[in-house]
This record gives sequence, structure tokens and C-alpha cells, in this order.
Amino acid sequence: MYKVYGDYQSGNCYKVKLMLSLLGIPHQWHAVDILNGETETSAFLAKNPNGKIPVLELEDGMCLWESNAILNFLAEGSEFLPKEPRLRTQVLQWQFFEQYSHEPYVAVARFIQLYLGLPQERRAEYEGLHKRGHKALRVMEKQLQLTPFLVGEQYSIADVALYAYTHVAHEGGFDLGEYPAIQTWLKRVESHPRHVGMLD
Amino acid sequence: MYKVYGDYQSGNCYKVKLMLSLLGIPHQWHAVDILNGETETSAFLAKNPNGKIPVLELEDGMCLWESNAILNFLAEGSEFLPKEPRLRTQVLQWQFFEQYSHEPYVAVARFIQLYLGLPQERRAEYEGLHKRGHKALRVMEKQLQLTPFLVGEQYSIADVALYAYTHVAHEGGFDLGEYPAIQTWLKRVESHPRHVGMLD
Repeated sequence: MYKVYGDYQSGNCYKVKLMLSLLGIPHQWHAVDILNGETETSAFLAKNPNGKIPVLELEDGMCLWESNAILNFLAEGSEFLPKEPRLRTQVLQWQFFEQYSHEPYVAVARFIQLYLGLPQERRAEYEGLHKRGHKALRVMEKQLQLTPFLVGEQYSIADVALYAYTHVAHEGGFDLGEYPAIQTWLKRVESHPRHVGMLD
Repeated sequence: MYKVYGDYQSGNCYKVKLMLSLLGIPHQWHAVDILNGETETSAFLAKNPNGKIPVLELEDGMCLWESNAILNFLAEGSEFLPKEPRLRTQVLQWQFFEQYSHEPYVAVARFIQLYLGLPQERRAEYEGLHKRGHKALRVMEKQLQLTPFLVGEQYSIADVALYAYTHVAHEGGFDLGEYPAIQTWLKRVESHPRHVGMLD
């Protein structure tokens, strides 16, 4: 059985949990406490030399890291990863967008607010993160005004990747009221019969 | 013929140029000046709503963005993208590592030094980028002590992705003298008969 090393409140880890649920794949969850330095132990670094969660450990002990790489591994051959080359590229395009232009702002603002309690000395940084996070949300809104999912008509791992931190963006102080197409898309993702919530 | 919208000095754009050279695919290069706001015009935003280079425009006008997504599109079916599922996942793993744990430090330090001339007010940020950039270089060094390329025995788009900013890391003030396996790997990449330099 697959093992997942992660933190239930981390959107990056939740991506893997949601994907496993959508595909109906059983797994064991091993909680890792990032604030307690558990990703920096030699045992953990042997699983991921970059010291980050999530890690997916396969039956034979091989470890895969980077949440979006894991999504591609799990979804290969399923309805969540198209075969057509241009669509596949668009899925990756949104996943790289997520890691470069969305997560470093939306998720980090949430980390500062939810995990650290928004300390005064990080206020200025927090405001800067909001500016760039809203830019990412506007790019998503524009696409979701055109198509029901990020890549056309089909729920894909691009949506799993961007749902993870977008649906909890309010925990980082982002008001999604300005983004009607994103709000409709969140409900569309949540309506999947095998959907699972972050803290379920 | 493919069109590439980019800046020759940008590592993200160079990835696409190097890949097209390795595959022997002819293309037209359209220079985009990021410092002059050329990625924020409505004409450019119609190509990439996220306002970033590079963009690959296909023969029929469809535009693909995100450098690593473009690498996957171009390399599909070639020796630079393995078919075996675990190897493919490792290629993606290193590409997401590049965008999240390497580029934001190594490339941004280079941007501050090379493009902006290392202004005094960004010195503290620059030092912080060095700390995290060296962490990424240590993770690469560890892998390259084990295998000749980032994913096993074969030159892949994981190497293209990480070569782009690593080979010019000194332009951001990083001394690669501490990383012998990275230095050997840089030469290995450069020895490919269809290799092309950033400013060639």
C-alpha cells in the first residue's frame, strides 16, 4: 500500500490525498510536523533530499516528491490526465503556474496567518503576497470564465493542483468574492462524488 | 514554423532555445524586453495571460507558456523524456524542484546582480537568496554524486531545466567551486553535439 508523508493542513499534501480519493486508491498517512523540524531529520532526508512534504512512498520503498509530479504519476492513464499532447501541456502549464505564480503568494500568506498568527514583523511581506496572489487569482478567473475547468471540459490534475490552496485562500486573507468564476469552479470540483475535504 | 517569444539572457527562455537545438527544430525568435513592460501589453497578454516569457507559438497560433511545460511538449517521444512512469515522474520532480526551490533564489539573485546592478536596497534580500540557492545546489550536488544526469544515465529535460540557471549561477554571485559533481555535470551537458550556449 502507498504511504503518504504529509501534513493535513498543507495544500501540497492535500493534493495527494484528494487525488488518491478521486482514484479510489487506499493509502497510509504518516503525519509529519514541519514546524517541529521533522522534515530535516536524516530519516526524512533519505526520503526527500529537499526536506519537503509531501512524499509518496511506493510499495517497494521508492519515494517520489514534489506534489505535482506525484499527481502526474498517480493520474497517468486516468480521466484526470488527458492523453492529447496539447491538453497534457496545458495541464502542466497550470501546474507550473501553481508552483511559481500562485502557491508562493496564496499559500505563504495563509501560512503566515494560519500557522504563525500573522505576527507584526511579517505584515509588510503579507501585504506584498496579497498583491501577487490576487494577480494569480485574476489569471485563473479569466480562464474559468472561458472553460468549466482549467483545461477545457474535463476535471484534471490541473484543477486538483489549484483547488488545494485556492479553496482555503480566505485563511490567508484573500476575499474570493471578486472572483465569481473561481467560486463556481470550487463548487464544481467539490461536487465530484469521490471528493474529500482537506480535514475530512 | 514555431515562434518563441523570449529574452536571450533569461534562463527560462534559454531552456526552450536549448531544447529546440537538441532536437534540431527550426524556429523564429521574437525578442521581448521585460524591463520595458513588453510582457504587459494586451497583445502579449493574449499569448500568455500570466504576462511571462517564454511563450511558444505553434504553427496554428496556439500559444504554450511555462518553460518546463514547453520542454515536456517538445521532448515528448524523444530520448530526452523517458517513457517509464517512475523515470518520467522523477523528471517532473526535478522540474518542479527547479521552479520552486532553485529558480526563485539562483535566478532572482542573478537578476538583481546582472539586470539591476545589485542596488544597495536589495542587498539583504540578495544575501537571503544566496542561503536558499545554496540549499538547492546542495540537493543537486547530492544527486549528481550518485548519477551522471539528474535522472539516471540519460540526458533529459530535467537537466535542460536545471542547467539553464545553474550554468550562469556565478552571474548571481554563486561560487560553484564547492560543487564538483555539478561542475562535471555542466561539462557533460555542454559536450552534447547539438548543445547551444545562452548567447550563441
